[in-house]
Amino acid sequence: MAIKAKVGILGASGYTGAELVRLLINHPNVEIVLLTADRRAGQEMRQVFPQFTPVKLPTLVSIDAVDWAKADIDLIFCALPHATTQKVIKDLLGKAPKIKVVDLSADFRLHDPAAYQRWYKHEHSALELQKEAIYGLVEVYRDKIKSARLVANPGCYTTCAQLPLLPLIKAQAIDLDNIVVDAKSGMTGAGRSAKEEMLFSEVSEGFHAYGVGHHRHMAELDQEFSLAAGREVIVSFTPHLLPMNRGILSTIYVQSKNKSAEDMHAILSKAYANEPFVHVLPFGEMPQTRHVRGSNMTFIGVQKDRIAGRAIICSVLDNLTKGASGQAIQNMNLMLGYPETTGIEQVGLFP
Amino acid sequence: MAIKAKVGILGASGYTGAELVRLLINHPNVEIVLLTADRRAGQEMRQVFPQFTPVKLPTLVSIDAVDWAKADIDLIFCALPHATTQKVIKDLLGKAPKIKVVDLSADFRLHDPAAYQRWYKHEHSALELQKEAIYGLVEVYRDKIKSARLVANPGCYTTCAQLPLLPLIKAQAIDLDNIVVDAKSGMTGAGRSAKEEMLFSEVSEGFHAYGVGHHRHMAELDQEFSLAAGREVIVSFTPHLLPMNRGILSTIYVQSKNKSAEDMHAILSKAYANEPFVHVLPFGEMPQTRHVRGSNMTFIGVQKDRIAGRAIICSVLDNLTKGASGQAIQNMNLMLGYPETTGIEQVGLFP
Amino acid sequence: MAIKAKVGILGASGYTGAELVRLLINHPNVEIVLLTADRRAGQEMRQVFPQFTPVKLPTLVSIDAVDWAKADIDLIFCALPHATTQKVIKDLLGKAPKIKVVDLSADFRLHDPAAYQRWYKHEHSALELQKEAIYGLVEVYRDKIKSARLVANPGCYTTCAQLPLLPLIKAQAIDLDNIVVDAKSGMTGAGRSAKEEMLFSEVSEGFHAYGVGHHRHMAELDQEFSLAAGREVIVSFTPHLLPMNRGILSTIYVQSKNKSAEDMHAILSKAYANEPFVHVLPFGEMPQTRHVRGSNMTFIGVQKDRIAGRAIICSVLDNLTKGASGQAIQNMNLMLGYPETTGIEQVGLFP
Amino acid sequence: MAIKAKVGILGASGYTGAELVRLLINHPNVEIVLLTADRRAGQEMRQVFPQFTPVKLPTLVSIDAVDWAKADIDLIFCALPHATTQKVIKDLLGKAPKIKVVDLSADFRLHDPAAYQRWYKHEHSALELQKEAIYGLVEVYRDKIKSARLVANPGCYTTCAQLPLLPLIKAQAIDLDNIVVDAKSGMTGAGRSAKEEMLFSEVSEGFHAYGVGHHRHMAELDQEFSLAAGREVIVSFTPHLLPMNRGILSTIYVQSKNKSAEDMHAILSKAYANEPFVHVLPFGEMPQTRHVRGSNMTFIGVQKDRIAGRAIICSVLDNLTKGASGQAIQNMNLMLGYPETTGIEQVGLFP
Repeated sequence: MAIKAKVGILGASGYTGAELVRLLINHPNVEIVLLTADRRAGQEMRQVFPQFTPVKLPTLVSIDAVDWAKADIDLIFCALPHATTQKVIKDLLGKAPKIKVVDLSADFRLHDPAAYQRWYKHEHSALELQKEAIYGLVEVYRDKIKSARLVANPGCYTTCAQLPLLPLIKAQAIDLDNIVVDAKSGMTGAGRSAKEEMLFSEVSEGFHAYGVGHHRHMAELDQEFSLAAGREVIVSFTPHLLPMNRGILSTIYVQSKNKSAEDMHAILSKAYANEPFVHVLPFGEMPQTRHVRGSNMTFIGVQKDRIAGRAIICSVLDNLTKGASGQAIQNMNLMLGYPETTGIEQVGLFP
Repeated sequence: MAIKAKVGILGASGYTGAELVRLLINHPNVEIVLLTADRRAGQEMRQVFPQFTPVKLPTLVSIDAVDWAKADIDLIFCALPHATTQKVIKDLLGKAPKIKVVDLSADFRLHDPAAYQRWYKHEHSALELQKEAIYGLVEVYRDKIKSARLVANPGCYTTCAQLPLLPLIKAQAIDLDNIVVDAKSGMTGAGRSAKEEMLFSEVSEGFHAYGVGHHRHMAELDQEFSLAAGREVIVSFTPHLLPMNRGILSTIYVQSKNKSAEDMHAILSKAYANEPFVHVLPFGEMPQTRHVRGSNMTFIGVQKDRIAGRAIICSVLDNLTKGASGQAIQNMNLMLGYPETTGIEQVGLFP
Repeated sequence: MAIKAKVGILGASGYTGAELVRLLINHPNVEIVLLTADRRAGQEMRQVFPQFTPVKLPTLVSIDAVDWAKADIDLIFCALPHATTQKVIKDLLGKAPKIKVVDLSADFRLHDPAAYQRWYKHEHSALELQKEAIYGLVEVYRDKIKSARLVANPGCYTTCAQLPLLPLIKAQAIDLDNIVVDAKSGMTGAGRSAKEEMLFSEVSEGFHAYGVGHHRHMAELDQEFSLAAGREVIVSFTPHLLPMNRGILSTIYVQSKNKSAEDMHAILSKAYANEPFVHVLPFGEMPQTRHVRGSNMTFIGVQKDRIAGRAIICSVLDNLTKGASGQAIQNMNLMLGYPETTGIEQVGLFP
Repeated sequence: MAIKAKVGILGASGYTGAELVRLLINHPNVEIVLLTADRRAGQEMRQVFPQFTPVKLPTLVSIDAVDWAKADIDLIFCALPHATTQKVIKDLLGKAPKIKVVDLSADFRLHDPAAYQRWYKHEHSALELQKEAIYGLVEVYRDKIKSARLVANPGCYTTCAQLPLLPLIKAQAIDLDNIVVDAKSGMTGAGRSAKEEMLFSEVSEGFHAYGVGHHRHMAELDQEFSLAAGREVIVSFTPHLLPMNRGILSTIYVQSKNKSAEDMHAILSKAYANEPFVHVLPFGEMPQTRHVRGSNMTFIGVQKDRIAGRAIICSVLDNLTKGASGQAIQNMNLMLGYPETTGIEQVGLFP
């Protein structure tokens, strides 16, 4: 058996941490050698996530207990909160410059320090790394990712909106000034912190929008859509919370002067014909989040609106998998030279 | 004690039937004297809906067993499927022209026979009644409803979209050619028929759009929006199914050349200042479906989009109450001369 | 119109507080004049529970801001946490001895100071009041409650277990040493505090037992079952958490040397023949929590086991209504001389 | 690469069929060559279960279209309804006696034709095969399964009850006449047929018992418990339906004259020390269904009751995996000579 790559997960007690562990323990080419969780340091992973009871895993440690200079680690997944992340990774790469990093936070997604400061209300503390980081949307930046040391894994909402929109923007198929993205997410997207508004009794059997007009994921959309268009593109984007755990669905309204909905469907079908994780459904068929649960797949559907020149597009993914940890492993596979789909080929768990 | 009005419910074994019974048994001015359910004829209501075990109610009968000419009934709620409805009501009003009717189906909502035929694929079989029927959106047609014999109770999706949009359209505050209504409904909106796609295991922990580009509620929206605007108005409308029982939320994207989101909020606040069942939240606050569950309330929130000239509006209601049976009783109260809010003053059941 | 009684709610920002408000605002004989919530003092109730947006209610204040000696209040509902409660009520009744109190905590349910200390690990600080308090299970202590000043409203699990078991124990119909109560509760029973294990993502789509072998509600069961039997009775009791908001179902296994399951059904049917809030279903029919949601009803079903001499009994109630706030109002009605069912006659909200 | 075994699935359009496909498409040693579904014949699997959109699978055919004599198939999974199954397998094995069969129905689980007839109300039509069939509870019958041609995969409820109880019965550690099994199952256990009582709106936000006193899974429990005890053993067993998709939890009440709860925990821990799919948690820790979702694991917890001599045991599994399709593949692995855990080593999908 070939030598396995040694990987670590910073922030293993959160949901994206658990999802990384779930997928990595069956990955044939890697071995988990480090799990950190500051508040749970000293505990076993099974105490934090009992589903891992049958699995042998490293005991949780605090990040401060790790001696990066001496660590025998090939790649780190960083699943820490925004702002903490940039400090930790700066320290880590300062001491161990050969370790590769896939960061799941928002800290390295924005190229523009000014945009970062505007959206996050403080100066970025690792500007050099911000410059170095490659945006990890594999279907767009595959080649750059292969040789990257630091990859900024895209956000869940933004992955779900970019995959259907980028090919249409690049093909100049849609009106750039009239794009509406109405997005709905399962609760795991909100993380594991104990907040009143996230209690079961507050969330169950109900639905609402949040962050209307000012959700931070917009910054990431602005950047990537504008890059693709070659001019500034700003979309209307409204996130909502669904009474379910996993899954994002984006309903996207676009209009065009020169392309029909069928044309758009053809553009998307062609763009993703050979992609293992993006599937464009037959024209008029709409995707459901439940069919990609626990998988790294994105399903996209296109239908024509009854208003001439308009199309309605729905895209779905699992916010913890393609929207976070699955895509992070997809990035890792490229960075370590493994086949891109290794370890993340599961189909959705339905029902 | 005053004499109570005698009411009957056709189609009592469906969800809107049960919701009518739930609300009417505590209504001080009416008495339920007739419940029909063809396939459950001969059974007690508690066998069909066990929550009524503690309540004395008429035994279920089939419609054919009712002798309308001799029936001592003041008002009928008709909660039958589309198409069947027009035949039943034509027969009923033919034999008992003094009975008042609130119809919860779509059969009498469209004024234009051609529009009906286009959307429902067959000719309307009660054209005279279609002409007579008053559209029962109380906040708009209150005066006409008071003297109506036949009221067409509005659809759930359409009530939720009309209440926030009509005042803006009438005030010429928004661009009529660029309205997007992204609507999400709980499962009770789909009724009680046993279909695979409505099974718990198919619906739970997932989300999807349906009827994209061709949902029949659009016909009703077209009619009322166009009437309000004085010209044809067609909106983009996409319904989705939520993994929960009750509640509709419409996320509405509008733009304006001359009005700000704050202006729109002011227009809506003024329009509904004295309405008992429509509440406009403080600017920027967004409503949640859970807070109107089981109540006849509609909550509306307005927020400005970051794109200049655009606003995002959310409205919520309970599809079985304000979206169906509660609004039907609101109509009944007007038709029978009772205070409009009698029997439907409950606030939402949360949590 | 007669003068309305003035009532206050201590702890209005929790779920039982909200449920009290929901029911009391439509109660014809009372007026809410005081709402306290220490951490939310100064806010409006609608900020804490937006469903009350359409209702005029007193602003939330802190308990310390209330001058009990001068307060013009007839009855207080106390929905505060255990231990805090006894201090607050002692102070309140010390300063305003004519105010009546319905306490929803566990603080005054146990008669025996030693039992209290054993289960709650500290001495009771209001022993005189503990002695005075009447246990508020209306179906058993109706007469005493009518003249009580301080009523200890029973727990949700214990109400659900006592109503089916007490008549059988009193009739000496079952073996007292072999009773199993397997209880399942919706999440609102766990309250509104922000704890990781109560997050939607932790609770949804799963099920588990908790407090196995040592849940505090056992103390209350021991007391009431032993009183009914005239000897010590201890049952096996296991609580579980359901992925839903409201409802408790207790599955109870009993055996008998001399009575059949049919006999037990007859005993229960007779015991509750005239009770407005307890309904024994036809023999062999089993109750569902959903049919009592939001109502003050308890439904009980009895079926014979295939093992000779054993019966399986299921009872259901809504933990926030008959299990807490509804029963508290039932107690209030008796204490203030109103008809027992006033304001709590709603049937279950289903679907 | 070694030659892969060729397998087929009869009844691929049901939930256990889909679960088999989900697990088998990542199994390194098998290839799916046949999928039948009579009512969906001619369709692709993705039309029935869209999660398989990314996977190449055989088109669905009807069973009658299969020529068993010529079929190049090593093993068949039969996921057909009870009664149909015995006819289909009799025909199949008559024409192709070398094909191995794992049957997921109840048709071959009972050894005694009289018991079969008593519980299923008709004579068994394949008595020879009933005699031949090996009961597929791997942890008990591993050796016999290795050489079996026809394996009767155990029921979901019964697997969940047998795994914790059999070692205790065999060790004579518990009173055989006083065992209570209170079982709760997710909705997928009820299958995919369109029935009113299985609609989302009927199931969501509620809980109830069903089949009380007469559920057919009891026959299987009677047989295996009696075999283990060497005398007749009949337990009290009550199934309930949970508002969630996957998972069974059995709460088991046992008592003993000579063993403590700690002793029982030790017996179970020893019995399953080397089992890959059964994990006994530390004493006093209770399992949750969510932690085994989508996995082939069973978790067991033991706690002492406060009543001397009694213990409370909880066991959990995923009814579609260890309770059906996962265990079927575990059986297949043994029958085809593969390592027992191949293809079913996933841990639970949580959250």
